[in-house]
Amino acid sequence: MKPINVLSKFDLFDEQWSPRRIAELNGQQVILAKVEGEFIWHDHKDEDELFYVIKGTLKMEFRDRTEVLNVGDLMVVPRGVEHKPVAQEECWVLLFEPMSTKHTGDVEHAKTVNEYKVI
Amino acid sequence: MKPINVLSKFDLFDEQWSPRRIAELNGQQVILAKVEGEFIWHDHKDEDELFYVIKGTLKMEFRDRTEVLNVGDLMVVPRGVEHKPVAQEECWVLLFEPMSTKHTGDVEHAKTVNEYKVI
Repeated sequence: MKPINVLSKFDLFDEQWSPRRIAELNGQQVILAKVEGEFIWHDHKDEDELFYVIKGTLKMEFRDRTEVLNVGDLMVVPRGVEHKPVAQEECWVLLFEPMSTKHTGDVEHAKTVNEYKVI
Repeated sequence: MKPINVLSKFDLFDEQWSPRRIAELNGQQVILAKVEGEFIWHDHKDEDELFYVIKGTLKMEFRDRTEVLNVGDLMVVPRGVEHKPVAQEECWVLLFEPMSTKHTGDVEHAKTVNEYKVI
């Protein structure tokens, strides 16, 4: 039960598309991710997912449109909605989601990380 | 399912100690609060509560110590732990907590707001 500085936590890792868990509460987790390039199309059947951009710009592609999130913007992607995060330059994102959420949904992919590191 | 700019949402209200809900997911809510001065001692029997400082400085008093959160710091206060938020100057805070959470816990107080406005 100590303050956690989000930017300092980002300084602890360089790996992209590899979420780190920084807090846990009410069965939910706060994770940090560095992303660059294109992720894969996926959805989460039972979990809504919140993205909050800390640095850079994140494009969230949906099947019918794209939303752009800049620093200080957040967005909830509801369960069951296919999405693909894309970032032209490295983007730092904080996510809130259930502990059970897998970042590639049901898709098994080279980018899939099954156990998030805790930092 | 649109991006939400957190600072723009803070511009929509001036009232202190009066949380506004900006998003809902997985039975949890994202709320914003402007705080200044001393809140009241309270706890939440069944809910962990996350505080994330967007502007200013928040002191979180516990019965045995005080933690200081600056901009970019977050902290989880676990269920059942008595706490009292204090801010010498106006501080803007983003909170993540279950929909069921009452900001004054079981304490009924002049500051108690039973229904959060959605902005």
